Amino acid sequence: MKAARLYGIGDIRIDEVPRPSPDPGEALVRVKAVGICGSDVHYFKEGRIGEVVVSEPLVLGHEPAGVVEAVGEGVEHLKPGDRVAVDPAIPCGRCEWCERGHPNLCPSVRFFGTPPVDGALREYIAHPAGALFKLPEGLDYECGAMLEPFGVALHAVDLAHLKPGQRIAVFGVGVIGLFVVQLARLSGAVRIFATDLFPSRLELAGRFGADEVFRPDLEDPVAGIMEATGGRGVDVAFEAAWVHGTVEQAVEALAPGGTLVLIGIPLGEDVVSFRASSSRRKGLTVKMVRRMKHAYPRAIRMAEKGLVDLKSPITHRFPLEEVQRAFETAAEYRDGVVKVMVEFINQRS
Amino acid sequence: MKAARLYGIGDIRIDEVPRPSPDPGEALVRVKAVGICGSDVHYFKEGRIGEVVVSEPLVLGHEPAGVVEAVGEGVEHLKPGDRVAVDPAIPCGRCEWCERGHPNLCPSVRFFGTPPVDGALREYIAHPAGALFKLPEGLDYECGAMLEPFGVALHAVDLAHLKPGQRIAVFGVGVIGLFVVQLARLSGAVRIFATDLFPSRLELAGRFGADEVFRPDLEDPVAGIMEATGGRGVDVAFEAAWVHGTVEQAVEALAPGGTLVLIGIPLGEDVVSFRASSSRRKGLTVKMVRRMKHAYPRAIRMAEKGLVDLKSPITHRFPLEEVQRAFETAAEYRDGVVKVMVEFINQRS
Amino acid sequence: MKAARLYGIGDIRIDEVPRPSPDPGEALVRVKAVGICGSDVHYFKEGRIGEVVVSEPLVLGHEPAGVVEAVGEGVEHLKPGDRVAVDPAIPCGRCEWCERGHPNLCPSVRFFGTPPVDGALREYIAHPAGALFKLPEGLDYECGAMLEPFGVALHAVDLAHLKPGQRIAVFGVGVIGLFVVQLARLSGAVRIFATDLFPSRLELAGRFGADEVFRPDLEDPVAGIMEATGGRGVDVAFEAAWVHGTVEQAVEALAPGGTLVLIGIPLGEDVVSFRASSSRRKGLTVKMVRRMKHAYPRAIRMAEKGLVDLKSPITHRFPLEEVQRAFETAAEYRDGVVKVMVEFINQRS
Amino acid sequence: MKAARLYGIGDIRIDEVPRPSPDPGEALVRVKAVGICGSDVHYFKEGRIGEVVVSEPLVLGHEPAGVVEAVGEGVEHLKPGDRVAVDPAIPCGRCEWCERGHPNLCPSVRFFGTPPVDGALREYIAHPAGALFKLPEGLDYECGAMLEPFGVALHAVDLAHLKPGQRIAVFGVGVIGLFVVQLARLSGAVRIFATDLFPSRLELAGRFGADEVFRPDLEDPVAGIMEATGGRGVDVAFEAAWVHGTVEQAVEALAPGGTLVLIGIPLGEDVVSFRASSSRRKGLTVKMVRRMKHAYPRAIRMAEKGLVDLKSPITHRFPLEEVQRAFETAAEYRDGVVKVMVEFINQRS
Repeated sequence: MKAARLYGIGDIRIDEVPRPSPDPGEALVRVKAVGICGSDVHYFKEGRIGEVVVSEPLVLGHEPAGVVEAVGEGVEHLKPGDRVAVDPAIPCGRCEWCERGHPNLCPSVRFFGTPPVDGALREYIAHPAGALFKLPEGLDYECGAMLEPFGVALHAVDLAHLKPGQRIAVFGVGVIGLFVVQLARLSGAVRIFATDLFPSRLELAGRFGADEVFRPDLEDPVAGIMEATGGRGVDVAFEAAWVHGTVEQAVEALAPGGTLVLIGIPLGEDVVSFRASSSRRKGLTVKMVRRMKHAYPRAIRMAEKGLVDLKSPITHRFPLEEVQRAFETAAEYRDGVVKVMVEFINQRS
Repeated sequence: MKAARLYGIGDIRIDEVPRPSPDPGEALVRVKAVGICGSDVHYFKEGRIGEVVVSEPLVLGHEPAGVVEAVGEGVEHLKPGDRVAVDPAIPCGRCEWCERGHPNLCPSVRFFGTPPVDGALREYIAHPAGALFKLPEGLDYECGAMLEPFGVALHAVDLAHLKPGQRIAVFGVGVIGLFVVQLARLSGAVRIFATDLFPSRLELAGRFGADEVFRPDLEDPVAGIMEATGGRGVDVAFEAAWVHGTVEQAVEALAPGGTLVLIGIPLGEDVVSFRASSSRRKGLTVKMVRRMKHAYPRAIRMAEKGLVDLKSPITHRFPLEEVQRAFETAAEYRDGVVKVMVEFINQRS
Repeated sequence: MKAARLYGIGDIRIDEVPRPSPDPGEALVRVKAVGICGSDVHYFKEGRIGEVVVSEPLVLGHEPAGVVEAVGEGVEHLKPGDRVAVDPAIPCGRCEWCERGHPNLCPSVRFFGTPPVDGALREYIAHPAGALFKLPEGLDYECGAMLEPFGVALHAVDLAHLKPGQRIAVFGVGVIGLFVVQLARLSGAVRIFATDLFPSRLELAGRFGADEVFRPDLEDPVAGIMEATGGRGVDVAFEAAWVHGTVEQAVEALAPGGTLVLIGIPLGEDVVSFRASSSRRKGLTVKMVRRMKHAYPRAIRMAEKGLVDLKSPITHRFPLEEVQRAFETAAEYRDGVVKVMVEFINQRS
Repeated sequence: MKAARLYGIGDIRIDEVPRPSPDPGEALVRVKAVGICGSDVHYFKEGRIGEVVVSEPLVLGHEPAGVVEAVGEGVEHLKPGDRVAVDPAIPCGRCEWCERGHPNLCPSVRFFGTPPVDGALREYIAHPAGALFKLPEGLDYECGAMLEPFGVALHAVDLAHLKPGQRIAVFGVGVIGLFVVQLARLSGAVRIFATDLFPSRLELAGRFGADEVFRPDLEDPVAGIMEATGGRGVDVAFEAAWVHGTVEQAVEALAPGGTLVLIGIPLGEDVVSFRASSSRRKGLTVKMVRRMKHAYPRAIRMAEKGLVDLKSPITHRFPLEEVQRAFETAAEYRDGVVKVMVEFINQRS
């Protein structure tokens, strides 16, 4: 079968690799769609994230959806033909953090497309059945793939303990930031601010519920938020931008007692930094977001109910054969590009 | 000026009483609308709530809105002509609970229409300016009056720490229950159940976001909720009904780990009771709701933004002169009656 | 091997039964000590707890410790000769509650000595290795057995979120109540109140840190607590008594904003009940305790460090042969009886 | 009367200034002891903290205790001769944060010894009676002064939500760090680590409950903590050191899911910074500590009960006349100096 592997910075090739078969408790899934995530782009552009380095050819991709082709021994809740979203994480299930209900913090987790674990950009994957979630009618494979970034946004919003009537700011409205905007609106926020360098993203944010948007290259978002809130600031600031200034801006835009939720992965220097005096004076709480937990069933219920628009952020679609172009597009970081989806269109479904 | 006073069970009379004048820090408010609350009806029908007894003629009413007529010394944020909602509670401001931000638990609170403190069903009230909240354009006096029960619902929902994607049940959809339904929808619930004896209330609940409604006189709401949730139950159950069986039903309808929020005041026996074995096995949390805190500014922002429909629950309006009929209507407890509003229509505004 | 089985109310017999062998992932444990818990006594005296009924001969006992005799396939962290405490619960590991870190709420849990699952009062048990916790030097088998009720107390205290400087009341100081007293002292409480009918328990409570004790048959504990706190009441009240009045007392003894933690299992009627008006006015939170979670490793560290006195509550010890007398003693509910331990003394260790 | 005023960096002089008289609601307090805090030393050595600059002669000192000399109109709970601790903060009482119970976050707070508000290093202060707390017998003026830093430690520990059985690290054991160690022990920690450059502080930390101490100039505290915890790390890390490396160390020493409580004020650059990748991977929570709230009554109860050793950290005492030497000593930052106290010994008491 075919698999797209990263050979070095900017170099993805399609190889023929052996097709996996499902072990007991696993299912074989024929992959139908895989979203390209910012962390995939990190590996593509820099070959690493912090201290995690790609040293051998690696299959990237951790936002897959597909259809069950076969099930291993002991799998009862799935059968061939079931369309499924795929949780890319396989936590150990036995450590202190798994036991306490925080599989996202499992130190021994295996995660698609994180060295040395191959990812989902291949025709077939064998995966634990417990990490496969049936897609109800009305949710297609693209929706299934988008559930992964939506789950991260949902976890970030959970950490913030939103209440109706709050004022919220989202710094950076790529895919996750756009989902955070949707969730803030869905949580009864009275005022949602969004910032981004790219007009098309801000336009989408506005459609998803942002009341006021800022382009930090043209205007000072902190000043804008302070003016709009009578000098008070916001209750919760989400940083989902990958660029340094946004953390500082988020800290300065918060009201006393506020919460900063840090989702982004910094480009360049491996450091979080912000002003000590203002963050102390305001008694802020900072939450570092690590992936997600228990999100799939809830996210599926929300999507099925129509509470969330999963697909509008998809701006580009490429067949597997054009995976290199897909990555180059995702890596361009320019207006008009939000989510790039790799589709396995040559397959029958 | 005129004031409506309760002389005994079922007996309200309009008396001439002296018009108050504002002390320093107070404002004089000409009352324009007062909602009749379930607890007013308790006093009207039974002369007491638990151990609190009406022994002398008492002005009832604690859901007022009006217009500032004059301000006392030192009041700077208000001026004559300002239209205001009136927080009926005057906490002491100095006790442990006030200091800790829980004025709703202040043991020395003075509260409109709770013996021996006169309420708002009179032409003028003098009230601390800090408890008066300007109504923005677009919110009329009726909205101002409705902010009080809405604030209680908001506080109840705050106690529940709702998250998007949850399943919620509301037992009893009088005014507060109806606002809880709206807030559950506004908090991203995927499934909202509502119960009530009266079809017109259930119809409103459905309009406000309830997905499935039950009449407990015709069907078993617990069985219905369990069926609809695959035997799991709901994450949060709000009891807002004033009748005993609803507490039991709420406990039985909850999933393991669920939260019961108790808003209602029991009619008759002064007791909360539910099954020990099932509530223990599910490890439930029960939150008893005491009025509200810090709700007005937030509620006003939400109403101004159009997030909440404050006025649809108003089913009856009476002029002050017909206050006795207004109470009799509110006390009927029949289909078609939700919120009864007393309007001070003879006054110029 | 020998096993003590309940044949009917008040009737326990020692039978010869087949010795189990460990499945993969399990270990065979030779039992050395088993504490008799209040819920065992419930089954012994009434044949049921709420709707759970003993219908066939059942081995009781869920507070065991012993020594590993053999390990099944795949067990690596244990070897024959290891002395272990045994967590009596085997949650399913796959349901929503297990995944979220609440195995104590697992609806499919298998639990020692709860129909139809046999308990630990037998010479050997085969048990999942993940539920066996090595006892460090200095903790003997009795300590191992006492970790179970201590774990329940620890979970109850976790639910209360104690802070240093609080005032705490414990209604009922049987074994769990006594551990709660120890944990309240260990959490920096400034004032600990304890109530019980039996002087010897109150004497132990005083030794463990209770500042003031009450016998509810001789004096009103609520009045005493209110007097001692200047009319304020306590921050947290633990009910661990199994008798009805204590729930009411706990509610009345709480300060506004307080938390009631319900640990006890009611004797007789299957109901929790308390006063509506005072609990509402004080805005109380009620937490229902269901067993424990993640407690063993933490409890062992605490015991090893000498932070807790596990053994002083043991007042009676019987060999397995006298298990009927052990139960009769535990069931007497009289002064001088706290924890009854069944020891497997005829075995070599 | 005499007042010690900061004229410039390193320059404190004793001036004659007018004696204040108490306004309504205030009391006149004759000051008896004032502790010198790290933030006082910041002003003394650098003339500023972050953007807050001393521009005119300023009375420093915000850890006072004294005796009531006279009371203003309307003060009822105090009388001349009462010995009192003095809360140095006067929050506005009306803003959103004061109302919500977070007076420590009040943007309009007036705080002793923070420009332009004069502090407590003078013979008399007139202060709101609500901010004066009677010292019970057994607590002398030095205890009264030490309640201020103890209150900050108590607030920091409250933010961490400690539970019995946890592993805790304290980076920097000046006065506040030493109180955090005491509170960690008082909260049932099983293992307490402490770091400091100075042996005498580590010796005190050991006496107060630290199990293992590290000198970061001689050994790597992160490596030591990881070794002692089997590679897991601690549940909560308190940073109370004022130096940069400690924030990084605290982040690295935490276990997944851990909480970092930041108490210290950075010397030099006004920035908080730590590694992004490890803090994200561990899903950390960071809490920024801003002074304290509601701490005095609780702290006094704890001290009265003997739960805390307030005075052992006092290493130096100077009379008011030698206030310059007192500050120079506090500013030396050397082994053997922990808390420097200014005593008003020439006055009769």
